[in-house]
Amino acid sequence: MSDSTTTAELAFRELRADEFPRVWPIFQAVIATGDTYSYPPDLSMEQAREWWTTPPSRCFVAERDEEILGCYMFKPNQPGLGDHVANAGYMVSPRARGQGIAGKMCEHSMQQARQAGFTAMQFNFVVSTNTTAVRLWQRLGFTIVGQVPGAFRHAVHGPTDIYVMHRAL
Amino acid sequence: MSDSTTTAELAFRELRADEFPRVWPIFQAVIATGDTYSYPPDLSMEQAREWWTTPPSRCFVAERDEEILGCYMFKPNQPGLGDHVANAGYMVSPRARGQGIAGKMCEHSMQQARQAGFTAMQFNFVVSTNTTAVRLWQRLGFTIVGQVPGAFRHAVHGPTDIYVMHRAL
Repeated sequence: MSDSTTTAELAFRELRADEFPRVWPIFQAVIATGDTYSYPPDLSMEQAREWWTTPPSRCFVAERDEEILGCYMFKPNQPGLGDHVANAGYMVSPRARGQGIAGKMCEHSMQQARQAGFTAMQFNFVVSTNTTAVRLWQRLGFTIVGQVPGAFRHAVHGPTDIYVMHRAL
Repeated sequence: MSDSTTTAELAFRELRADEFPRVWPIFQAVIATGDTYSYPPDLSMEQAREWWTTPPSRCFVAERDEEILGCYMFKPNQPGLGDHVANAGYMVSPRARGQGIAGKMCEHSMQQARQAGFTAMQFNFVVSTNTTAVRLWQRLGFTIVGQVPGAFRHAVHGPTDIYVMHRAL
């Protein structure tokens, strides 16, 4: 990867539902390994599109030179009397790993969530063996507020604990 | 309430989606107080029906002398690689409180969830001030595995912590 590619500014924009096929390859690559998301390996694009782009869910992409390198979604974690807490999920293209894109997407998502009126953000399903993610979220102010034993069937490790992580916005 | 009413056997059966209007009054009474569920006070019956009866959600009722005294729902807490953990919710008619119906519904739900292949059950949103429920779930084998600060806007207490509770089946 050339220097010009890695140093160009990362740009964010909201994705329209009809553009979802553009992020679907990233989605598929991320869930194929069965080590970070609970989404079934045979998830259909239509189901993924519905979960990530149907209001109140909102989907954003991180682009560099008009190439989509990552995507994220945020939505209320609960309806009604719990809808001040946002939930979010992030995916980085395998070809763009190690460039800090997940962290930048998380910061962007917190900003967007704040603007939308959310006062906190919660992750319900951080796979405990995904230490890179756990440490990143901690560095960004999230704390582990829960640990559910064996809630994830990890493709390699089998039954694996998940963390609930949270921070105020 | 007469002795014959309170001593008659509680009967359980699965509710069809088209019967949902029969439990809607219970649903409305339970969410109206804004102290146990995050459902918005202006929730529509159609939305509630969809959440509680559309597969993979399954809704059961507890009846005595053909009167519905309570209802519950269970479903996978996550799709795909987390779908071995059931999530459930319970509602008791205000006129049938204090008769142990929530506990009996929970036991029935665990049995049903086991039969459906689930190996654990998780509650995502037990309001911490709802001590009757917290103690009941603990008595039935659930433990608090998480605590999210201020995740519930309690009608009386304002921002209130919620517990994540879990048990193996």
